Amino acid sequence: MSRSERIEPRTLKGFRDYLPEVMIPRESLMETARQVYRRYGFSPIDTPALEYLEILAGKGGEETDKQLYRFQDHGGRWVGLRFDLTVPLARFVAQHGSELPVPFKRYHMGPVWRGENTQRGRYREFVQCDFDIIGTRSVAADIETVLVIHDLIRAIGFDQFTIRVNHRGTLSGLLERLGLADHQTAVLRALDKLDKIGPERVAQEMAQTAGASTEQVRQILALGEITGSNEAVLNQAGALAAGTAAGEEAVGRLREVLQGLQAAGVPENRVRVHLSLARGLDYYTGIVVETLLDELPEIGSVCSGGRYDNLAGLYTSQDWPGVGASLGLDRLLAAMESLGRLKKHSTAAPVFVVYFDKDRLTDYLRLAGCLRDAGLGVELYPEPKKLSQQLKYADRRGFRLAVIAGSQEFAEGVCQLKDLQRQTQQTVPLEPDAHSLIHAISQILTESAPLRNRPNNL
Amino acid sequence: MSRSERIEPRTLKGFRDYLPEVMIPRESLMETARQVYRRYGFSPIDTPALEYLEILAGKGGEETDKQLYRFQDHGGRWVGLRFDLTVPLARFVAQHGSELPVPFKRYHMGPVWRGENTQRGRYREFVQCDFDIIGTRSVAADIETVLVIHDLIRAIGFDQFTIRVNHRGTLSGLLERLGLADHQTAVLRALDKLDKIGPERVAQEMAQTAGASTEQVRQILALGEITGSNEAVLNQAGALAAGTAAGEEAVGRLREVLQGLQAAGVPENRVRVHLSLARGLDYYTGIVVETLLDELPEIGSVCSGGRYDNLAGLYTSQDWPGVGASLGLDRLLAAMESLGRLKKHSTAAPVFVVYFDKDRLTDYLRLAGCLRDAGLGVELYPEPKKLSQQLKYADRRGFRLAVIAGSQEFAEGVCQLKDLQRQTQQTVPLEPDAHSLIHAISQILTESAPLRNRPNNL
Repeated sequence: MSRSERIEPRTLKGFRDYLPEVMIPRESLMETARQVYRRYGFSPIDTPALEYLEILAGKGGEETDKQLYRFQDHGGRWVGLRFDLTVPLARFVAQHGSELPVPFKRYHMGPVWRGENTQRGRYREFVQCDFDIIGTRSVAADIETVLVIHDLIRAIGFDQFTIRVNHRGTLSGLLERLGLADHQTAVLRALDKLDKIGPERVAQEMAQTAGASTEQVRQILALGEITGSNEAVLNQAGALAAGTAAGEEAVGRLREVLQGLQAAGVPENRVRVHLSLARGLDYYTGIVVETLLDELPEIGSVCSGGRYDNLAGLYTSQDWPGVGASLGLDRLLAAMESLGRLKKHSTAAPVFVVYFDKDRLTDYLRLAGCLRDAGLGVELYPEPKKLSQQLKYADRRGFRLAVIAGSQEFAEGVCQLKDLQRQTQQTVPLEPDAHSLIHAISQILTESAPLRNRPNNL
Repeated sequence: MSRSERIEPRTLKGFRDYLPEVMIPRESLMETARQVYRRYGFSPIDTPALEYLEILAGKGGEETDKQLYRFQDHGGRWVGLRFDLTVPLARFVAQHGSELPVPFKRYHMGPVWRGENTQRGRYREFVQCDFDIIGTRSVAADIETVLVIHDLIRAIGFDQFTIRVNHRGTLSGLLERLGLADHQTAVLRALDKLDKIGPERVAQEMAQTAGASTEQVRQILALGEITGSNEAVLNQAGALAAGTAAGEEAVGRLREVLQGLQAAGVPENRVRVHLSLARGLDYYTGIVVETLLDELPEIGSVCSGGRYDNLAGLYTSQDWPGVGASLGLDRLLAAMESLGRLKKHSTAAPVFVVYFDKDRLTDYLRLAGCLRDAGLGVELYPEPKKLSQQLKYADRRGFRLAVIAGSQEFAEGVCQLKDLQRQTQQTVPLEPDAHSLIHAISQILTESAPLRNRPNNL
């Protein structure tokens, strides 16, 4: 084929490939999330990437609508690519409700698509990792949502993080007392941007979209200044929303959530009542939650969610309240990278077997088979190239150990075990079942395993 | 909202939701594949669902082109949804070749889309699980491909299966001798359908598309009748293709593959040289492989692949030979279901904690926390509903064990541990750290674990 007939190999604008060194930690993070979700009794579901357009359009606000990938399929049906996992969940419970055990606890991990402006450094395809408990208003489900977040962030390897909680009712109560109850949506949308755009621009927006006065804005923004123990913050919240049903119920509910978290062993300093926390999504009606890494609060929340009253009202008359949250996979990976917590290697197997002597392929295959039977991840180089070239490849791929044996070693019944990380080497006897080698390898890998639990290969 | 304003909740024609009882085994199967691929040093990659249309169009033949989901994105670019993971791999290696270690061993699992005719019971979205070794012509890579398939099918839980191998060269050699070398593509496409449409219709097709005479067809179809030991079959192949370079090389190569597999411990009866095996895809040039379940050969191959010379020739002048295969996830799951090997339950956690006494939520939370800290999957029911209702839910979800404690039990420092499968119950002491309960639970779960390794939760 001539050069001019070739097609330029390139990813679509706004999209990206994941190379192994990026994909290995992504997969590990997703596997960790799966394990934590399952540990709490959540079950996986999946839904199609494509939905009828009417299911998706108008469900995520004006901006999402603009970003929706939409087209006509082969049968002339208007369809769209899902832009989140919440709208498909709503359609799912409305459609399958009668078959589902209630409460329905599901997790869902998968790609979603939004035709966003790439100038903001955003991608048009990203993975969401959601979990939700549907069909109950119980505070136990609110508590569990925070517990899952807490376990998840710890399982990923972070110790220093803060889960901020609030209840939409504390805000409703205050707004009611301020005479702004009718403008709640606009006020909360503005308040949600506090960390991003600062108090002045939030004040401007509240004045513009909700007609809030300077004094009203001052009182709302003062929420952000209320600090102290959770108990002290709750007491102040109680005073601010006093006399309003929504406010008093919310404060009582938050108190129950905190008690439950304490009983389940969550250290108090990891959960803070944060009265200015609103979360942008309009559908939240109860607790709202976000999670900040103490070392990198500026990247924003890495796991956020809340309670909603009526998930599937657009599709069914049945009542589906719920609570849940979403893990910010890309944000967490970016955080781990910038904190130097991401080991980059492009193999998940620790052992590399050199193909040294070209006539001994069957011996290397036998050896690699023995090691794999012992549960070890083993790659055999496929060609009898120069040793230096093979070791360079092994080093680049990030293998920990290399096994080297040529005719001389086989004749002597030994092999060389090279620790590519420490740059040490030992001679190990080589029996037909390779038990000495398996032992030596296991010893090195066990020694260097970190003391505390960590997700595999991160 | 009035009924008339509601949107009917439905999945798009040709697509499906995966409910938990279906998704749990799917996830387990994918996790098993991931583990096996990694054990051989394969690394994960991912590519976008959407590609520039020019990357995809014309790459999979006429039928695939017709089935391609294509549209214009927000910037007016023509784009398409990937229809397999091989074309994106070709684009990927052409684009990132200089950054990749060679051999490049990748696995890739993800959804692909084809606007197929749904009358054939096919879905328009399905998951592919591919692995490939790119950048080497070595026989070691051919052997490894078969080894991975062998390990994979065993890890999924099958003992009785047959991996059929052939080499395109044995067929080329015979066709050369028959004077049909120029019609190889048409002949092999027809031959590939032998199991599906039978010898008569294959003969018809060969006559029509390749102009093959009755005698030529007879000789080609006779390949399917050649049975016996692998050695005997190879000897016959050698005779049939004698004097042709392609045929002789192919027979030699197959012999090396079989030797390697034997050295690596694959039982001979699991691998059969099958001379009429062609595989439909035009790009195969070396060994071709398919895998049949001995109990259900009629469902077709559950893992197929082969060697190709030039993966990325459409996108680059660089030479990328490779070999690999693809796991038929849906077919395997269907097989497991029809063989009764699929346990349907909708939870991956074994322990259910009843919320019995409404004032003791914190006690239940504490208890569930202790069990989870011990590594157990535990779901706490979120509401203090009637015991019978909670147990019905637990049973429906498929929990193995239920922990029941009310005021009386707490006062006595005990709880009831109910085995929902065996319908037995025991009273267990309940210490603050729940160690007796953890012990009792672990004992029951260990006892009922199957003797041989099995993938989690299948």
